Amino acid sequence: MAKNITPRSENYSQWYLDVIKAGQLADYAPVKGCMVIRPSGFAIWEAMQARLDRMFKETGHVNAYFPLLIPQEFLNREAEHVEGFSPECAVVTIGGGKELEEPLVIRPTSETVIGHMYAQWINSYRDLPVLINQWANVMRWEKRTRLFLRTSEFLWQEGHTAHETYEEAQEETLKMLEVYRSFQEDDLAIPVIPGQKSEAEKFPGALSTYTVEAMMQDGKALQSATSHNLGQNFAKAFEIQFLDRNNQQSLAWTTSWGSSTRMIGGLIMTHSDDDGLILPPRIAPVAVALVPIFSNDQERTQTLEFAEKIKQRLAEHLDHLRIQIDDRDNLRPGDKFFHWIQQGVPVRLEIGPRDVKQQSAMVARRDVRDKKLVPLDEIADHVMRLLQQIQQDLYLRALDFREANTRTAKNYGEFKEILEQEGGFIRAHWNGSREVEDQIKNETKATIRCIPLNDQPEAGKCILTGEPSKQEVIFAIAY
Amino acid sequence: MAKNITPRSENYSQWYLDVIKAGQLADYAPVKGCMVIRPSGFAIWEAMQARLDRMFKETGHVNAYFPLLIPQEFLNREAEHVEGFSPECAVVTIGGGKELEEPLVIRPTSETVIGHMYAQWINSYRDLPVLINQWANVMRWEKRTRLFLRTSEFLWQEGHTAHETYEEAQEETLKMLEVYRSFQEDDLAIPVIPGQKSEAEKFPGALSTYTVEAMMQDGKALQSATSHNLGQNFAKAFEIQFLDRNNQQSLAWTTSWGSSTRMIGGLIMTHSDDDGLILPPRIAPVAVALVPIFSNDQERTQTLEFAEKIKQRLAEHLDHLRIQIDDRDNLRPGDKFFHWIQQGVPVRLEIGPRDVKQQSAMVARRDVRDKKLVPLDEIADHVMRLLQQIQQDLYLRALDFREANTRTAKNYGEFKEILEQEGGFIRAHWNGSREVEDQIKNETKATIRCIPLNDQPEAGKCILTGEPSKQEVIFAIAY
Repeated sequence: MAKNITPRSENYSQWYLDVIKAGQLADYAPVKGCMVIRPSGFAIWEAMQARLDRMFKETGHVNAYFPLLIPQEFLNREAEHVEGFSPECAVVTIGGGKELEEPLVIRPTSETVIGHMYAQWINSYRDLPVLINQWANVMRWEKRTRLFLRTSEFLWQEGHTAHETYEEAQEETLKMLEVYRSFQEDDLAIPVIPGQKSEAEKFPGALSTYTVEAMMQDGKALQSATSHNLGQNFAKAFEIQFLDRNNQQSLAWTTSWGSSTRMIGGLIMTHSDDDGLILPPRIAPVAVALVPIFSNDQERTQTLEFAEKIKQRLAEHLDHLRIQIDDRDNLRPGDKFFHWIQQGVPVRLEIGPRDVKQQSAMVARRDVRDKKLVPLDEIADHVMRLLQQIQQDLYLRALDFREANTRTAKNYGEFKEILEQEGGFIRAHWNGSREVEDQIKNETKATIRCIPLNDQPEAGKCILTGEPSKQEVIFAIAY
Repeated sequence: MAKNITPRSENYSQWYLDVIKAGQLADYAPVKGCMVIRPSGFAIWEAMQARLDRMFKETGHVNAYFPLLIPQEFLNREAEHVEGFSPECAVVTIGGGKELEEPLVIRPTSETVIGHMYAQWINSYRDLPVLINQWANVMRWEKRTRLFLRTSEFLWQEGHTAHETYEEAQEETLKMLEVYRSFQEDDLAIPVIPGQKSEAEKFPGALSTYTVEAMMQDGKALQSATSHNLGQNFAKAFEIQFLDRNNQQSLAWTTSWGSSTRMIGGLIMTHSDDDGLILPPRIAPVAVALVPIFSNDQERTQTLEFAEKIKQRLAEHLDHLRIQIDDRDNLRPGDKFFHWIQQGVPVRLEIGPRDVKQQSAMVARRDVRDKKLVPLDEIADHVMRLLQQIQQDLYLRALDFREANTRTAKNYGEFKEILEQEGGFIRAHWNGSREVEDQIKNETKATIRCIPLNDQPEAGKCILTGEPSKQEVIFAIAY
């Protein structure tokens, strides 16, 4: 049907770009590596933001805004951090027509400048915890970019908290990981594996990094969000000290956690098909599209009037901005259907003159593409139930896919064979060393995606060295 | 009462900064001229955003995101535009460790890059109108900065629309001006004068600029938002062309309109008093603060329980995140009252052990500082009515102030006398020439704030030249 979209089986990367193009989600910007998020794509981000922001606030967080530009010297203060980010920086050297005395870096992340401010705001244990989140644009100069998944500028949220004790910081780190898990699974209908990152994969400067990892339809892994226990590393570098309950100066324990427009890429690659975008109802900016079908002015008036009537009934259950009537005169009905399919809208209502006469509408699902004639009085209930059903079905379909593509490798031979022939996630034992991790990565491109948190640990032997291993970890090729 | 705030009468500028500091609204950032918007300040911005964003969407606009960095060459394409912004730019010359071939400018505004994208998206009259808004950070290198009112980086929204005809563009320009007027008056309780800017004061590159002008408590004017009819200037510079209904290539007609974190400065300077911030209920992040008063554990339990009960009743009418119980143990009641007063929270409830016994609470207004004992069963209704009353009273108080400080000058002598002795807004006739405007500005620092849109025009004579004038205009010293 969709001739403008390359099938997944033919070229998965091209399919991804075609879905974005057909859905008018994003374009490359005139500046290399940067993107323009078009209204249909940005509306998805807004829906994500609204939901996540509410979850952050319900867990006691507040938002703030820190400056875009950071003195270069700040980045240099935390050794691992500078190593991680320096090569990726965009640097401002001219301001107001003059060469600057000290170059300023466009934030690649805000740990450092936030650390600097926290040092001023925090004096006593009474000032703790500080639970702040920021929604912002950040910049990391990327050589190879892909819309949403990796661009030089992207939008994200970064939570930064400060606590009295290690335990509180660790509790916060895991609490926010759970927020991300719930958001991914319940709102985006994307099953994820929550787990800890290995040393090689953790955030520069963190004590430990946690992640939620999702499987895309090509079997590759996508890290959807991360939560870091920063220990006292940034507190030390930025002198975030407080007078503790024993009247002693102590260093604060900090965390940070983030998720970005990359999640839109994950959403696309989890649910969409060869006809284009498929959006889960809870996050779909437009949940229901109403398409009147007419061939003359009289029919136009009748079908539009009837569509308006249905919209009003739906608006008792849904924000009216999430229900759209497609009243364009210059497109044929088939082209309109096509448009809403490529926009990924979960439910489409088709309303022709005959439907007006018999007071009913054809209700079509985007995900499984079946249609059902529903009488007017049942439409609102039917559509609301259907939206729930689609949400659940998308999640289960993705979960089935992940389970079907997760395999266990007993030894390195099996590991390489699975990776070459089938891809997907591979569960395998690992001795916990950086060397083994690096060797496997160099030889196969697979990385440890995470050490799962919810597994019942079962001891075994490292696939490479035969040394003891406490539990299986998840390997995959990752985005 | 508030010893940490300089009285307005003593030093107005210092008062403004003290209110911000006491309310923990913002701090200067480690980068010169930039600010950190602290949680209490950012929550006000979020409330503004939520309300404005809804108004934009209800008038048919959608959001998108365009890149932070703009090729320097783009700014040079529109002659007036380059003149207006070039000296203010922050320039990125290094990216990914290398000198860039072409320097990139941090957007001072996005007309140019959006024009570039519109040229690609718009081909036919069927693609019009394009009605897009962006929420973003922008940067203009400022020499003299003041928190919220003028900072090198600030947050704003910029609407950018493209239309088939001049008339449609003009209609859009005035429609968005009306959105701003309604937002300022109905939500922020700030009376404004909608009007047109003179040639000297209009946006670089615009055909005509419209503004809403408010009077601050020192009698100075604040331009709170602007809406521009850009004519075909940017369409010409960026080749935004379309095949019109007669099958001819035509240039699009574009508009832009914006408002920024500067509005927080206007909000502070319109309503606050010598005790600190006063927020209008509709925009106050926390609408009601409940302060339990206790001197032992038993009283603590009782008063907190009762506060929770009241909160639940209020939560039937207000988002529960807008109702806060102050359960801090390390502050005395007086200090808590003080805190909520300086946070500008419209209504405060004081709940002591005696109130629990007689099932009532003391309800205190922030604006006029009176208190009333209200029985439990009436609290929700009482508070909701009170919030409406405060909203209205704040608006009327500001309107009275503006009217009392608006004077008419018959001649230039009178004009200078009023300006020197009383300040405020001065209505005066003007011959419409740039020369007269410049001379008055040079001699008195007063500028034409706007040519009011809603006045019944009455002809007269220019205060400087005696030449004919179609209507009075508003002069003032401005922020």
